[in-house]
Amino acid sequence: MELTEMKQRVYDTNIELVKRGLVIYTWGNVSMIDREKGIVVIKPRGVEYDDLGPENMSVTDLEGNQLEGDLLPSVDLDIHLAIYKQFKEVGGIAHTHSTYATSWAQARCDLPVYGTTHGDHFFGNIPCTRQLNEEETASGYEKHTGDVIVETFHERGIDPMQMGAVLVAGHGPFTWGKTPEEAVEHSVILEELSHMALLTREINMEAPQLEKHILEKHYLRKYGKDAYFYQEKK
Amino acid sequence: MELTEMKQRVYDTNIELVKRGLVIYTWGNVSMIDREKGIVVIKPRGVEYDDLGPENMSVTDLEGNQLEGDLLPSVDLDIHLAIYKQFKEVGGIAHTHSTYATSWAQARCDLPVYGTTHGDHFFGNIPCTRQLNEEETASGYEKHTGDVIVETFHERGIDPMQMGAVLVAGHGPFTWGKTPEEAVEHSVILEELSHMALLTREINMEAPQLEKHILEKHYLRKYGKDAYFYQEKK
Amino acid sequence: MELTEMKQRVYDTNIELVKRGLVIYTWGNVSMIDREKGIVVIKPRGVEYDDLGPENMSVTDLEGNQLEGDLLPSVDLDIHLAIYKQFKEVGGIAHTHSTYATSWAQARCDLPVYGTTHGDHFFGNIPCTRQLNEEETASGYEKHTGDVIVETFHERGIDPMQMGAVLVAGHGPFTWGKTPEEAVEHSVILEELSHMALLTREINMEAPQLEKHILEKHYLRKYGKDAYFYQEKK
Amino acid sequence: MELTEMKQRVYDTNIELVKRGLVIYTWGNVSMIDREKGIVVIKPRGVEYDDLGPENMSVTDLEGNQLEGDLLPSVDLDIHLAIYKQFKEVGGIAHTHSTYATSWAQARCDLPVYGTTHGDHFFGNIPCTRQLNEEETASGYEKHTGDVIVETFHERGIDPMQMGAVLVAGHGPFTWGKTPEEAVEHSVILEELSHMALLTREINMEAPQLEKHILEKHYLRKYGKDAYFYQEKK
Repeated sequence: MELTEMKQRVYDTNIELVKRGLVIYTWGNVSMIDREKGIVVIKPRGVEYDDLGPENMSVTDLEGNQLEGDLLPSVDLDIHLAIYKQFKEVGGIAHTHSTYATSWAQARCDLPVYGTTHGDHFFGNIPCTRQLNEEETASGYEKHTGDVIVETFHERGIDPMQMGAVLVAGHGPFTWGKTPEEAVEHSVILEELSHMALLTREINMEAPQLEKHILEKHYLRKYGKDAYFYQEKK
Repeated sequence: MELTEMKQRVYDTNIELVKRGLVIYTWGNVSMIDREKGIVVIKPRGVEYDDLGPENMSVTDLEGNQLEGDLLPSVDLDIHLAIYKQFKEVGGIAHTHSTYATSWAQARCDLPVYGTTHGDHFFGNIPCTRQLNEEETASGYEKHTGDVIVETFHERGIDPMQMGAVLVAGHGPFTWGKTPEEAVEHSVILEELSHMALLTREINMEAPQLEKHILEKHYLRKYGKDAYFYQEKK
Repeated sequence: MELTEMKQRVYDTNIELVKRGLVIYTWGNVSMIDREKGIVVIKPRGVEYDDLGPENMSVTDLEGNQLEGDLLPSVDLDIHLAIYKQFKEVGGIAHTHSTYATSWAQARCDLPVYGTTHGDHFFGNIPCTRQLNEEETASGYEKHTGDVIVETFHERGIDPMQMGAVLVAGHGPFTWGKTPEEAVEHSVILEELSHMALLTREINMEAPQLEKHILEKHYLRKYGKDAYFYQEKK
Repeated sequence: MELTEMKQRVYDTNIELVKRGLVIYTWGNVSMIDREKGIVVIKPRGVEYDDLGPENMSVTDLEGNQLEGDLLPSVDLDIHLAIYKQFKEVGGIAHTHSTYATSWAQARCDLPVYGTTHGDHFFGNIPCTRQLNEEETASGYEKHTGDVIVETFHERGIDPMQMGAVLVAGHGPFTWGKTPEEAVEHSVILEELSHMALLTREINMEAPQLEKHILEKHYLRKYGKDAYFYQEKK
């Protein structure tokens, strides 16, 4: 893919987060990877959206070395890189401080599957990480945040391509997918699921989680080998 | 009615759900039936609204056989068909994953009548179905979802023309009416009632349900034989 | 005042309720009285806002006899008339089913004064009426609803010009003022206060009501004899 | 700075509060100080925004004497002046009755730090003042409100330049910063934090506050001596 196109898509998906109401000020970032070329494009740090265009996106390699551009990459770059390195099929990553998903992360709770809306997009409870300790925070804080995301998936045996979202304890959500557009879609859906799960428990604290056979039906009719949800199999 | 007009109305009511904030992405569908011709028009499955026009609506018979068009009908078609077959006066059906109504469905609770706003449109508590079992889910899942809606109304002796809405356990709301426009209006109102019922209980967990004589007054002054709510009797 | 101007103001204030998000479909009405002429102008019943213009407003006398126009007046006319007859300084009345205020009415709770925002506009807790009994409901339901509002104020010794709002149990809010514009402003503010009071209790169930000396300070610096809140004394 | 520019900035930041949904009607005000000239510019009291332009902003000295203009300054002027006099680095102040922050003030609770979104902008729990007593309320109410804000910071040893916000008990939030633009930004962020803190507790009443080492990391990587959050050190 041309770098120009990557920059445009990364810019567009960052703007999409604002339009969807998930990001105010500079509270979010989207990145995209070209694994063949070993290149990552990400929003620059701490710059207002009104002052940005596609040409201002930052370009780095997988070690975080800036390859071009005047603006430093997002301060969260090392989180994105840790995910790209260890989740090999991820093509795009989004980060927001969206109201409801962030509140679940602040509450330090996994987001439970209460309904088919959840099962249509994420195959199980969305995990919340542990908090970083003092040593992990003192230096390499952002890289360690990425590592603890990966650790969470490995320890629990979760497939990141069936679970394109995580809640970082006391911080907020990161989402991903095969493309940056899918990563953003996962952010939007996670926010809606976070809202509905809270409401579900307010209506009925004893609400059961979605039955396993329903969860599997909904996830697999969309993404399984006999999927029939879309016009064509995805 | 001309098929062209049916497609236009089905398209318009689908778009209305988006405009009213009840549907994001492709999370909803509206259909309409012409009982004389035995024809159902419904939104096609898994296609973004921006890529759809009235001409793309799917046309089927009551057995679900596609009569024209390139796009497969909504994956929820069999739910709609089961309702049309067994609720003989229904002319249009809407389905959403709207935030508050879906949360009541996820909580597996009937929506109680707390006020006259509810009684102005639905004649009693809005029922929540039971969950489908493994066998019902394994094959014919969508048809069985429709059947369990009908079962709920039959077992409880509810008249579907006085109760144009249901909550499918762990899934979300379906609404209907004499027309697709009325079905959509019921979706909008159900969402508002779902929000207010939750708030009512948060303010006062002991809030009483609306007294029977007030419920009857409000429902019957609109739809009863001596109705006087509208300019003309409906 | 010219009737044409009255119709325009009643139309404009009805539309204002929609713009402010307090009314969907036909769920609300505003009226205005000319006490010298003994004329009331009110929104007609059950007609979509898109189909209405100022010329369609209904005109009645204080007994509810329609003086001109083709469209029947709001079904809530008798509630408005009962208020106008017994609260002699009221010049305009608004009714909505706004989400938060209606929820307090459904919860059958007075809206407590938790802060100065409330004290800036209403001089004390906003009362919730008792529910009508079967006899009061069977005939003259709307007139009796108006009467129970007045009864609530008389029994509790509340001055309706210091308390331009009431919650009708199981129904929703009515608000009023010297003008229909003030009535609508009271509806908007009541909705915001209803939201904040709910949140206040969710944060702290033991939250104290606003101290009497602060309530008096805020109300009287705006409306008392030594008021200094506005550019000119109101 | 030219007075014309000050008026424009005070006007613009007042309008920003409305655009951001933090102020309805006349429920808010922003001011700005020029410490060299001893001049404060503030929104006039009780005038609708539609009737205001930059030229209508009120100009006073630090004792509240009006230096020019036809319109009386905001009734909250003395609160602003008390803050300016005692917090020497403050350049702008904003006041709103925004829904969530006001609810925390009404609940009489400090806003706890639950996440990094909070730590990115405020260095600790946002304090709620004590309520004024009868004597403090009877005369000099507004000045005493300002004094109790300052008292809260002094008694708790909070640095107002690391904590640009306070909740006035039973009233609502005041925020400040080096500029009026920063004051408004703090109002917007405080509202979002107030919403998220409420949700966090609804999800998990036992949610822990953010660990001190994470709070320090987030605040200091933005504002500490080795800050790296922005393109340039602030």
